[in-house]
This record gives sequence, structure tokens and C-alpha cells, in this order.
Amino acid sequence: MKDMDDIPALMAGIGQRAKAASQALATASAERKHAALIGAADAVWADRQNIIKANAHDLEYGRDKGLSDAMMDRLMLNEDRMRGIVDGLRAVAEQPDPVGEVVAEWDMPSGLHIRRIRTPLGVIGVIYESRPNVTADAGALCLKSGNAVILRGGSESFHSSTAIHACLVRGLRQAGLPEDAVQLVPTRDRAAVSRLLSMTDTVDVIVPRGGKGLVGLVQREARVPVFAHLEGIVHIYLDKDADPKKALDVVLNAKTRRTGICGAAECLLVHQDIVQGLGSDVIAALIAAGVEVRASGDLAQVEGTVSASDGDWGREYLDAIIAAKPVADIDAAIAHIRRYGSSHTDCIVTEDPAAAERFFQHLDSAILMHNASTQFADGGEFGMGAEIGIATGKMHARGPVGAAQLTSFKYLVQGNGTVRG
Amino acid sequence: MKDMDDIPALMAGIGQRAKAASQALATASAERKHAALIGAADAVWADRQNIIKANAHDLEYGRDKGLSDAMMDRLMLNEDRMRGIVDGLRAVAEQPDPVGEVVAEWDMPSGLHIRRIRTPLGVIGVIYESRPNVTADAGALCLKSGNAVILRGGSESFHSSTAIHACLVRGLRQAGLPEDAVQLVPTRDRAAVSRLLSMTDTVDVIVPRGGKGLVGLVQREARVPVFAHLEGIVHIYLDKDADPKKALDVVLNAKTRRTGICGAAECLLVHQDIVQGLGSDVIAALIAAGVEVRASGDLAQVEGTVSASDGDWGREYLDAIIAAKPVADIDAAIAHIRRYGSSHTDCIVTEDPAAAERFFQHLDSAILMHNASTQFADGGEFGMGAEIGIATGKMHARGPVGAAQLTSFKYLVQGNGTVRG
Repeated sequence: MKDMDDIPALMAGIGQRAKAASQALATASAERKHAALIGAADAVWADRQNIIKANAHDLEYGRDKGLSDAMMDRLMLNEDRMRGIVDGLRAVAEQPDPVGEVVAEWDMPSGLHIRRIRTPLGVIGVIYESRPNVTADAGALCLKSGNAVILRGGSESFHSSTAIHACLVRGLRQAGLPEDAVQLVPTRDRAAVSRLLSMTDTVDVIVPRGGKGLVGLVQREARVPVFAHLEGIVHIYLDKDADPKKALDVVLNAKTRRTGICGAAECLLVHQDIVQGLGSDVIAALIAAGVEVRASGDLAQVEGTVSASDGDWGREYLDAIIAAKPVADIDAAIAHIRRYGSSHTDCIVTEDPAAAERFFQHLDSAILMHNASTQFADGGEFGMGAEIGIATGKMHARGPVGAAQLTSFKYLVQGNGTVRG
Repeated sequence: MKDMDDIPALMAGIGQRAKAASQALATASAERKHAALIGAADAVWADRQNIIKANAHDLEYGRDKGLSDAMMDRLMLNEDRMRGIVDGLRAVAEQPDPVGEVVAEWDMPSGLHIRRIRTPLGVIGVIYESRPNVTADAGALCLKSGNAVILRGGSESFHSSTAIHACLVRGLRQAGLPEDAVQLVPTRDRAAVSRLLSMTDTVDVIVPRGGKGLVGLVQREARVPVFAHLEGIVHIYLDKDADPKKALDVVLNAKTRRTGICGAAECLLVHQDIVQGLGSDVIAALIAAGVEVRASGDLAQVEGTVSASDGDWGREYLDAIIAAKPVADIDAAIAHIRRYGSSHTDCIVTEDPAAAERFFQHLDSAILMHNASTQFADGGEFGMGAEIGIATGKMHARGPVGAAQLTSFKYLVQGNGTVRG
């Protein structure tokens, strides 16, 4: 197809159509957006066998490409996961509509009445990797928040994403909303990503979800504002005053519940005073649970550990592997996390409130946890219904990004012939 | 001086010192920041004669450069304006400290207690033009919000800004805070601006305040996130149901109270049904007040108007000039503003609530006003104490930017050995 070869023209057209759709969407009623999402959920469920068939092509492509087991797992769709996607679409549909919400309202001595209300951002570009469910989640959240979206999935999930996208479009059409409100870039050509990053005239914000390669590309090339979604290099620090049962529960859950999600723990820091006792017990429990523990210092003496190398600090495994290191005290733990962390989610296990407070104050990760599993780093677990991802930047959105964080705001000011003195 | 010639090295040093200072500032107590601001206010007041003397050099430079009367007025400092600067510093000092404020707090069924608290952004770069008071306002707001700041004033205000900056540093020193928390780029070389825009390692956000030249430079070159401050191409639409007295009051105040501020009206749109009556009266009143009215269509028949050209639509005069145009109806007014406005502040004068609601819903300016002077577009008039400017972008900050909008946030999550099922 000639169109697919001329990437600049292809992308410019997608951008212009998205911008036009965003204007209709910005004033679309809550009911209509709800109907579109319910329609999409119904379409996905009705079409699930076809989507799973499309996914089989992607799995074959992934196998040929030699994807890791963790990546193949992220890519795979089955009836259970299809139900998850449908439930996700329905959950977003049933959330309150953020557009027009009065966030704050006050009167001034001048006589002005000021309201601050939520508005859509406009057009959102979402660049993601292998997980096909992001097509549904991101599409739904952007629609809910009144934004048009341009989806650019990973080449591995191309067929699955295309099949899911068709269902979203069916929902839009049934609800009488512009089909261009949710577009999927119809080519695997990587040049389309570079193009998307530079479309300042038509795209208001880019949400990149992916690993180092994507992040580097975005940092080099993005001209459009970005909600950075870096890796989840998640640390847990076991303080000397950690409760043993809480430590065991939290670390095991944080590492092993699901290893492929960004809230999975990747590095364990152990106060030197408890290396011999609790620290070693936790590591033994991780090994017993099938985790490869790459340990340094005295922790390397625990039976079954592997020796850590420099490359293990600040590494996101997304697999049944964890790095482990003794630290002199809480400040050494904080310094390690500042150096190697990714400002995603970090956790302290302690019974000492002063230590928890110090950890909360001196670190600036999007999510800081005390005595809780880092696998709670998730929009649903924060009460947001769903999330487009976990933002690690400091601009606009941060932490789990739900529909409300995909909005901007404006001030509506009411006077009565009011003038300034 | 050798240092001043090596702009990359100069700016890299400034950035590194700012980043180091920002870490001390992020955990500085509210009392200490308050003391630094009061100290700075005292220093500015004690030093006012020297600052006014420095300003005389700038005025001479401006005169030689042939600056317009409006620009010379923005540049000029006298005892009265020095008092304004001091009052501004004190006002910011007395505001509540935003850092650590709990913005939201809730419990989840999982047992987690979640708090969302304000944190500083880090290092803010402020690029501005001729107004020397911005040195004090921007420095104070960044300090209040726990951010280090790199100030880059216009070459016209170089001496005034340098003298004011020295007073801010004195306040920091007296309060025991790092002097590098507020730095002023010590050269007029424009290459320093380009450099600042690309310092992603040390600068978290750029706040550009200025005209088209600066905006274009920022759009082309910024690698750091930007709080866009475009021009204030402020429109007032006189609806067919406008109240005559309110219309006269609002338009005259919006145009003539101060012509050089960004909230000053630049374009008047008049519903065609009232061109002969109220519209002509308002224009006659503007002319009587000394305003040049560049009119089109039937409005050009009002005695004393000048003929508008295409270049008058979407133009920011910042002077005693206004463009004026008849429109067929409210939708034509909205279409004109969408095309030529700058998303800063736009106003409707009407007694028809449905028209006001339509204007509010179908425009997406940062500030929309109904029956109120656009000169209220100001942080102080919004109850924010002071402002670093009026942001016209949609990311993070929008409208008047006070200390609270110069913060980010993080989530603090409290569990009790809580794990995810």
C-alpha cells in the first residue's frame, strides 16, 4: 500500500483526524462516552475468539523473534485475559466522568466568583510495547477523559492490538462518536514513532510505556510534552527494626506475585545489623520460592545465592530475579535508591515511625510505601478504576495515571460588570 | 572574564549548583524559607536607591536601543515600584508553605492508607524579558515552593535584575539556606538561553515569559519540559444581550487600566445586532479615552476609527490600541477566538446565561470571564498571593501560576505488612 510507505503523510493525516475528533469529544456528553465504552466491551467479548486467533499470530512472531518467557507471558491472550480486558472497559465506563468536574470554587473580595474545572488535554499519543491489553485500557481512559488518542503498540502485539482496536471503533460508531477518537497506527515501521514524537501541532501529550530503548528515543526526539513512564526499578529496604513476618510477607509478595509488572521488586537492601538473621531468612525464602537472588557482601554467604555484579544495581529484571545488598543504615539505603532507582515505587519495612518518616521525606519516588507490597503500585489498587501506566516524571501526572490525570483545567470567572481598581 | 565566554561550561556549573541547592531546599523548613524571603524584602528596601541607580543604566540602554514607550514603562523602577517589589516579597513570605501539604488522603479496602502530598519540582529555569520585578517575584515563588531557580532576565533589565538578585542572595545567606538556590545568569549572551533550554540533567522545568521571539526559540529548542507562557491575545465578545453599562465598564477597564499587562484586552468582537448601538458607543468611549481603535466592517464607520488590516487579528499590542470586528453571532465569536486567541484570557459580556455557558463550554482558554474585566487575570486577584506568570499551555500549570502550581506530588502509602492477593 502506498500510504503505508509515506510515514510523514500517514502520521500527519492521523494527527489531523485526531485533532478534529478531539473537538467533538471535548463536548461529548458523559452518557455518550459511557455508551461507547460499554459498546466496546460488548464487541470485545463477542469477538474474543477472533482476537485470540490474532494473538496466536503475534505469539508465533514473538517466538521467532526469540522473546523471553516474561515477554511472551505479557503478550499472551486467553479467554481469562479477554475477560479481564472486558471487565477493565466496563470499570472505566462506570467511573465518574472527570470532564467538567468543579475541582475548586471560591469567591474573591472583588466580587468575582472563580471555578476551576477539569477539561480534556486534547490529543494523547500512547506508545507502548508488547502488552495488547494496553490498547483497550489506554483507549478507554483517553475516551473517558474526553481526549482523542493515537495508539502505537509494539510490533509484537500488532495483530492483537488491531483486533482489539476494531472493537473500540465499533463502540464509538454505535454511540455516535467520531471513529477517529481512537486511532491505531496501522504500521510496524518505527519511523512512525519518531514522527509521533514531533507532532506538536496535533498531539498534546505523549505517554510512553516501555523499556530503556523507548525511553532513550523519547528523550532524544520528543518535541511534544511527555508523561514519562520509565522502568520500575523498585527497591525494598529492610530496616533493622523490621517486623520479621511483615518483612517476609511483603518481600515475597512484592517479588513473586507477578514478576512481569512494573511494581515488582527488583532490589532488596538489608540493614547490616539484620543480615545474619532476618535478611538471610528472607533471602532463603525467596530462593525457596524459585527466585534467583544476586547478592553482594555478607548476603552472598546465604546458600543458593548468585554473586551480584555491578550491572545488577538499577536493573529491571521483570523476571524471577532479585538483587540484594547489605547497607550500613537507612541513609545508605536512601543514597542507593537515589542513585539507582527510577522514581517509580520504593518501600521501607520497619516498625520505627521515625525511620519511615525519614524514608518518606528524603526520597522523591512517585510512590513510597511503608510495610506494604510494592505490587500495590496500580491505579486500580489506588481507587482509580484503571490506569494508563505509572508516571515517573514530575510534570502534570505522577504515579498511577487514571482518567482524572489525563485532564487539564480552566478557570471560569463570573462577575457582574466587575472592574479592577 | 574567561568564564563568561565559555557559555556551555558556565551554564553547566550553574545547573549543577542549582541541583545541589534544590536537594537542601526540598527539606528546608517553612520557617527558614520565610526568613529568607523577609530578609530579601528588607535587603531590597534598604538597597532601593542603588537598585534605582542600576535601573537608570538599563533605561539608558533601552533608550539607545529604541524601546517603545510601553516597554520603557515596563522596565522603569521608581520608589513606588520598589515598594511594590518589597510588598510582593512579603506577600509570598506570608503565604502558606505548599511543600508537604496533604492534597488528598483516603483508605482502600486492602487496608492501605494513601496520602498525596506536595513536593517541589526541583530546579526551575525562568526566562523573561524587560520587567525587573520578575527577578524578585519568580525568585520568591520558586523559593517558597522549595525549588531552586535559574533566572535569565532580558538584556534590557540586566543591571536592575543583578541588583535585585543580590538582595535575594542576602536573604538566603542570612537564613542559612544555600545561595545557589536563586541564581541569575550573569551574562547577556543569548547562547545562555539556548543552553538553559537543553539542560535536561539539571533543570526540571522552564517557565518562559515573553513575546513571539522567545516563544519560537523555546518551541524549537526546548528539551526540558516547559510551562508555556504565550502572549495574552485577549478577546472580549459583546453579545447581543450585553448590558450597556457593564459592557462600557468592562471594556474600558480591560483595555485602559494598564495597557502593558498580558490581561489587557486586544480585540473586541461585537454581535452584529448591536454594532449600531452599544457597539458604536463602546468604541466611541474607547476613542475618547485615547485608544486607537482598528475597526473592520460596519464598526469602521464609527468616527475616529482606523481601518483594521489582516495583521490586526491575533495581535498583542500591549499599548493603547485595540482591534474591533462585528461577528454574526456567538459561534462566529468563538470561531474567531479559537483561530486568533492565545488561550490566555477571553471574556463574554452578556445577560443571557445560556450564551455565557456556551462561551465557557466551547472555548478552552486558561481563563474565561463573564461580565468581568480581563485585567483580573492575575495571581493576586485569584487569591494566590503572587504569580510567576499566566501559563497558556495545558500541562501541569495553567492560568496564574502561584507557589502551589510550582509543586509536584508523591504518594505516601501506609500498610501493616499488607500484601496484594
